This record gives sequence, structure tokens and C-alpha cells, in this order.
Amino acid sequence: MGLAVSLATAPPAPGREEDALTALAELVRDDLAACNRVIVANMQSQVDLIPQLAAHLVAAGGKRLRPILTLACARLCGYPEPGSPGQRHVALAACVEFIHTATLLHDDVVDESRLRRGLATANAIFGNKASVLVGDFLFSRSFQLMTADGSLPVLKILSEAAATIAEGEVLQLVTQNDLSTKDERYLDVIQGKTAALFAAACQIGAVVAGRKAAEEAALSDFGLYLGTAFQLVDDALDYAADQAKLGKTVGDDFREGKITGPVLAAYKAGNEADRSFWRRTIEDSEQTDADLDHALILMERTGAIEATLARAKGFAEKAKAALLIFPDGPVRRKLTDVADYTVRRVR
Amino acid sequence: MGLAVSLATAPPAPGREEDALTALAELVRDDLAACNRVIVANMQSQVDLIPQLAAHLVAAGGKRLRPILTLACARLCGYPEPGSPGQRHVALAACVEFIHTATLLHDDVVDESRLRRGLATANAIFGNKASVLVGDFLFSRSFQLMTADGSLPVLKILSEAAATIAEGEVLQLVTQNDLSTKDERYLDVIQGKTAALFAAACQIGAVVAGRKAAEEAALSDFGLYLGTAFQLVDDALDYAADQAKLGKTVGDDFREGKITGPVLAAYKAGNEADRSFWRRTIEDSEQTDADLDHALILMERTGAIEATLARAKGFAEKAKAALLIFPDGPVRRKLTDVADYTVRRVR
Repeated sequence: MGLAVSLATAPPAPGREEDALTALAELVRDDLAACNRVIVANMQSQVDLIPQLAAHLVAAGGKRLRPILTLACARLCGYPEPGSPGQRHVALAACVEFIHTATLLHDDVVDESRLRRGLATANAIFGNKASVLVGDFLFSRSFQLMTADGSLPVLKILSEAAATIAEGEVLQLVTQNDLSTKDERYLDVIQGKTAALFAAACQIGAVVAGRKAAEEAALSDFGLYLGTAFQLVDDALDYAADQAKLGKTVGDDFREGKITGPVLAAYKAGNEADRSFWRRTIEDSEQTDADLDHALILMERTGAIEATLARAKGFAEKAKAALLIFPDGPVRRKLTDVADYTVRRVR
Repeated sequence: MGLAVSLATAPPAPGREEDALTALAELVRDDLAACNRVIVANMQSQVDLIPQLAAHLVAAGGKRLRPILTLACARLCGYPEPGSPGQRHVALAACVEFIHTATLLHDDVVDESRLRRGLATANAIFGNKASVLVGDFLFSRSFQLMTADGSLPVLKILSEAAATIAEGEVLQLVTQNDLSTKDERYLDVIQGKTAALFAAACQIGAVVAGRKAAEEAALSDFGLYLGTAFQLVDDALDYAADQAKLGKTVGDDFREGKITGPVLAAYKAGNEADRSFWRRTIEDSEQTDADLDHALILMERTGAIEATLARAKGFAEKAKAALLIFPDGPVRRKLTDVADYTVRRVR
């Protein structure tokens, strides 16, 4: 007890950063519980395999980061007004999570991943076919829920985001194994596959509250920058994290020959021997068991991880700055903390 | 010339039935050309692989049956009014085709198909990953186009149809290799995976025309029955068609252990030796090169193909009956011809 109190007033200490998301979730606790109920209710189907597979991913795990953002941004914008029964943000947060879940299911098929959040992937358990089709189902359900909400501006934002995600994923596929990929293309990939949905999730918080365009744009920017920072860190973690802590396999990106920030940075900063190593392992996909360890050494030596994290920090700062058009208060502060947390979740 | 005239007044002769769809397409020719332009314009992306892959399927082939149904049903309902610039049916027909194309891309991945319409499938050329992701892109684009159209009733119809398609596909996956599948479940599969989109495609023709609920329901029924007949025939063709003529590989369903009408009928009508054959080949997936020929013989002997086609004919009759609330005229007549054509395209 005494320890908890002293920590609460102390400057951020290792481990405390993780509390930022928990604190934000706590702030929207009732809404998040309602959102979870909407999610569970809408993944039902007479075809048993659908809720079985969906439950594995939707109900079991996940930080619910994206729906929490929708709920918190709605709250930041004063929705619902005190005493009002408005629950639109809850249903739309579920839509966002369904789109995210559908893309996860398809990603894991595309990446042939076997492990996510420390658990076997849906495709590893239920097979690729079921994962593709249940992803399609959740995606469709998401649009059914949006249609029931009835806001064309929301439908526009989320259907555009969904198309952008798919474009980002295809672009990632196209740049795979290609060390000549321009850095801007890599940014296009992560803004497409990850940040676009963060942006949409935040923006619709302002839309349900009926806020003006500048506030919509500010929240969209916040989400875009936050999502970019998030993915940069994720890409760094793939070469740096403790596998048990991260709940995913370190070196997945390396084995797949994925072109990420750390690889581009290490390649650019490397000497001729380094570059030859990267060409063999990433471009030619010729890897031995010892290569991942050597890749990690090169990452350290060239400062590629640090550079990627510094870049993520820059985006987190931009995310925080975008919030400044809103008055100070507990929601803005906790959203700001989440931006800090995003770039501190490593080391 | 003389021959053509005599054929025009003669009773349907072999080959003439195929003209029914061509005749319907001809009736909405300008709208179909406009729809094709919308399709090509909306499958563009800065990510080159997307239009490349989409073009393979969307632009190159296909009968455009579903969008033609939307265009013809709108016309049947008097949309657009003469002299009016209304083009909503054109954009929505493109939405229907995009949903269809997205499901084809995912189907071919799920079924591991190598051939469609006599051409290599997209997954055979571009790989499964690209097919999954471009399917997602086209699906998203479809909802962007619907949102631009701005009709919540249309969004409701098509998002429900999309969810139903996914459910039908999952149910098909679940029943695979299972000879104890009830006939009603098989009907659920084909009404989900195929007929639901036919129904939606037809119904939205009435919606854009602002027709009353009874007419919407009649066109939805027409589409549902037509689509059911269409899929029954398709399933029969897989055991009966001339491969070159059909443009797909005969025996695909057999090799995949798919539970279709012909298999259920042949199993039910078969003797103990037949049933043992079906259990080995369909349930246990133990097949030799000679087994397909034997399956075709059993299909003939038990009358399974004829039974499936007779059933399809029953649905085609119901489809035609649903149109009777509309006054007689060239569009209704050609839609009726298409129902007849659907069950005559074999033999």
C-alpha cells in the first residue's frame, strides 16, 4: 500500500509506463465493458465455427487499444453529454475493433504467423481457410453495425480507412525482400497498415460528438501520429524485444524478409560486409540459424534500433501536440500519457 | 439472315438459351458500359499490384451477371425516369460486382483453385497473399462507393448480404467431407454463398427506384431463387460438364470433398457399394485417378444430376413467378428468359 502511494507521486519508473493504457482504459471502463458486450453479441452466428474462431482473437486477448481510443476521444469531445443515453461511440468502437480483428486474421494468414500475443494464431489452430472467411465475416459485421449507427460521415471515414489498410498491406507485400525500398515507401506502409485505423478510430470520436472540422482533423492527426509511432516501435521490438515479454516471436520480420525501419537504417549505416549480409538474408532469403543473432548485433552496432525509436518519439511528440487544441483535463492528459507509453514500451 | 429470322420465331434450340443473358445485357448496354467504367476507375490505386491483380479478374472476364441484374431490375422499376440523369444504379451495380470479385478472390484461395473461366486464377498467378489483400481492398472500395451513393437502406442490404456470404462460405468449409450433412444445410450453404448476393443485387434495383416494400421483396425473392437455381446447376456441372466448354475443371468439387447436391443425391440413392465409394473418396479423401470417372458413372446411374437439375428448374420457376407482380414488358420477359437459361445451360 505504502509503496503504491509513493509510486503514484514519483516520476515515471520502469513498468509504470505500461499503466498509461490501463489508466486510459479505466477512464472509459463502463463504455469499454459495453463495447465488449457489443463485440461478443455481434460475433455470434448460427455457424458455430465463426464465434469459436472469433472468440479466440476478439474475446480472449488484445489490449483493445483502438476501441479505447474511440471511446476516449468521444469523451474528450464531451460525448455523451452528462445524463444523455448516447451509446453511439460504444457501437462504433466495436466496429473499429472488428476491422482490426479482420485485418489481424488476414495478416496472420499472409505472414504465415504461428504466434500472436503469446498464443497460437487463429490460422495455426483453425487453418488459413477459416481465418480468411471469418475475417470477411467480421469485416461485413462491422459495416452492418456502422449502417445501424446510420452516420454516412462515419461510414466514409471507416470505409476509406479499410481501403487504406489493404493498400498498406499490399504495399508491404510488394516491398518485401527489397532493400532498395525508399524510406517514404516504408512510411506509406506503416501509415497504411496501422496508422490509418488509429486515425479513423480517433476521428470518429469527434464525429459522434458533432465537433467541428478542426477538432476532427486534430484527432485524426493524433491517431495518425500515434499509430505511426506505435508501428515504428513494433518494428523495433521485432529486433530487440524479449520474446516472453512481447508475446510474439522475435525475428519474425527478419525471417520474412520484411522491409522495416530498423533494417533500412542498419543497411544504410552498415559497412560493405553488413550490406552483403543484409542482401543475402533479406533480399535472397538465405538464412542460417545464426543469422538472427548477427542481425541483432548489427542493429546494436549501427544504432538502428535507437534511430527507429527516436523517430517514433518524434511522432509521439507530434501526436501530443495535435491534442493541444483541446483544453487540458484528465482525458487529454491520459491520451498524452498513452503517446508517451507507446514509445516507452521497450527497454 | 434467313436462318436467323427462322430461329427467332422457332422454339428454343440448343445454343439459343445462352442468348438470354446476352439479350438482357444488350437491353442495359449503355448502363453496363458505364458500370464497367466505374469498376475500372475504382480499382485504381497507387499500389500498382492492386489494379494489375484486379484487372485479371474484374476487367478481363466474367459474365457480369450480378451487375446486369441490378441494372435490369432498376430498369424494370422505371429507374432512371426517362430524361433523368440518375446513375445510382450504375454505381451500385459496380458495388455488387466488387463484392462478388472479392469473394471470388478469397474463394479461390480457400479452394486452392488454379483455373477459373478457363484462365489461371489470380492466386495461381499472383499468389495467395496478394489475392487475400486485394480482395479486402475491393471489398472496402465497394463500401466506399456505397457510402458515396449515400443510401442507408442499400448499405443495410449489401452489408447483410456480405455477412451472409461469409457465413455460407464458412458453413461450406464446415460441411466439407461430411456425408451426413443434411440437405437443408446444403441449401443454407448455396443460398448463403451465392443466392444472397443475387437477391441483394436485384433488390437494390427497386430501392433506387423508390418502389414499395412488396416490389423490393419480389425482386429479392427473384434473386434468391435465381441464385439458388444457378448454384444448383453449377454444382451439377462440376460432375457433368465438358471442361473446355465450362472453363473450369470438372471434378473440382469431388477432389475437394465438397458436399453438394449431386453428391448428397447419389449417396442417398446409392447401394452399399456406392456408399462405401463415397465414404472413401469424399469423407476419407482417399482418391485414385480412376475415381472421378466412377463418380460420374454413379451420378448417371442414380439420376443424381437429373435430380439436381430438376430441383434447379423448380427454383427457376419460383424465380419467374416472383416477377409476376410486375407488368409484362421487355425487361420482365428477358429476366424470365435468364431464369430459363440458368437451368438450360447444361447439355
